[in-house]
Amino acid sequence: MKKSVLITGAGGLIGSHLRVSMAGKYNLRLVSSDPIPDLETVVGDITDMTGMIAAFKGSESIIHLAASRRVSSSWDAVLRNNIIGTYTVFEAAYHAGVQQVIFASSNHVVGTYETVYAQNIQNSQHVIIDHLVPLRPDSLYGVSKCFGETLGRYYADHRGLRVICLRIGWINRNDAPTGGEIACSMWQSKRDFTQLVEKCLGADHVKFDIFYGVSNNPNCYFDIEHAREVIGYVPLDG
Amino acid sequence: MKKSVLITGAGGLIGSHLRVSMAGKYNLRLVSSDPIPDLETVVGDITDMTGMIAAFKGSESIIHLAASRRVSSSWDAVLRNNIIGTYTVFEAAYHAGVQQVIFASSNHVVGTYETVYAQNIQNSQHVIIDHLVPLRPDSLYGVSKCFGETLGRYYADHRGLRVICLRIGWINRNDAPTGGEIACSMWQSKRDFTQLVEKCLGADHVKFDIFYGVSNNPNCYFDIEHAREVIGYVPLDG
Repeated sequence: MKKSVLITGAGGLIGSHLRVSMAGKYNLRLVSSDPIPDLETVVGDITDMTGMIAAFKGSESIIHLAASRRVSSSWDAVLRNNIIGTYTVFEAAYHAGVQQVIFASSNHVVGTYETVYAQNIQNSQHVIIDHLVPLRPDSLYGVSKCFGETLGRYYADHRGLRVICLRIGWINRNDAPTGGEIACSMWQSKRDFTQLVEKCLGADHVKFDIFYGVSNNPNCYFDIEHAREVIGYVPLDG
Repeated sequence: MKKSVLITGAGGLIGSHLRVSMAGKYNLRLVSSDPIPDLETVVGDITDMTGMIAAFKGSESIIHLAASRRVSSSWDAVLRNNIIGTYTVFEAAYHAGVQQVIFASSNHVVGTYETVYAQNIQNSQHVIIDHLVPLRPDSLYGVSKCFGETLGRYYADHRGLRVICLRIGWINRNDAPTGGEIACSMWQSKRDFTQLVEKCLGADHVKFDIFYGVSNNPNCYFDIEHAREVIGYVPLDG
């Protein structure tokens, strides 16, 4: 029997890719702020607790993508969509009997370590930022994603959910690592992202963890070994 | 010339102690949600940006204590007072030209490590939880204090403030370590807390750091060595 998986923010860049690449393998449900043509979608607001509990009932896993996604997002935007919205999603998941939440975090929770990239290039060393380093957000957007991660830790430790946070690097529309060197170093191909998400969906043994969403890129200073060890993520691109 | 220091939450248990123990040594200003008898106080709400900017102007350091303080606080309470309120305080401090914010965080940002205490007792080992361990909040209150710490890190790294987070253990009204063993292990005497705050106020070299607010207690699993090394905190009680 196919696993029931619900995607919030299903109309966005990453959500649109996931619902196509995962189609047929899962019993997919979609939540979006706008209708998605030709697909059955719950059109709803992630700050609506009652609506989210109703939408989540019967799903085993939630992939929570809906958010203000720009690093330059205002406080008002991240407060509403990323803080209140993410709280609502976790609390609704708990009340709806969902077993797992996969939270779309961001490299911007540790964005201040970007200096490590320059130092690595300069010194021909290779320092790695892993999932255990202290949080150093580079923006209010990054702070809001730190909030989502620590909230997820709380729901995993104390409310019985299984939670995985994915610190997504840089997934782009044309699915190619074109742009600045730092952006390229944290690029993730769409098929590598799908692989990472599907490995998370199958990881019943993981109570809580944090993985970086990056392909196998030269000069990447984010750790991918931890995801390989824990869930067998093996990026095909880079 | 005395340093200008403003205390938010000056009418609370800890604020009331600080304004007495620090009186005369600093040019103290007070912000409180209620009037404080016989003292000049700005009666205001920490979610009022305009009011806080006006209140903060001319202060070198802010000691931000105002918050919903119960570990059982509801989401609505911590969202308003600890998340929106703390954002307002940091942003207002930035706009008012304040140099340093000392943020009253809490042991509850790492409260899930409480099992370490039991294990230490059982194994006669002594594992220490320091300022670098991954955040593991035990409550929505703890999550809200995690938010304040990562927000402080952002304001230190990117907005020019100096920020110190104090993970306060257990300060109580009668200033004595009476109660359960875990509470006693993280007790802090009022005079040790004042010492810790005053050492922070003098620590011009600290751009960002996190210290535990505990006395020198047996069986304490929170690190006090880091505060001793960085700012010379030497607890007198325990």
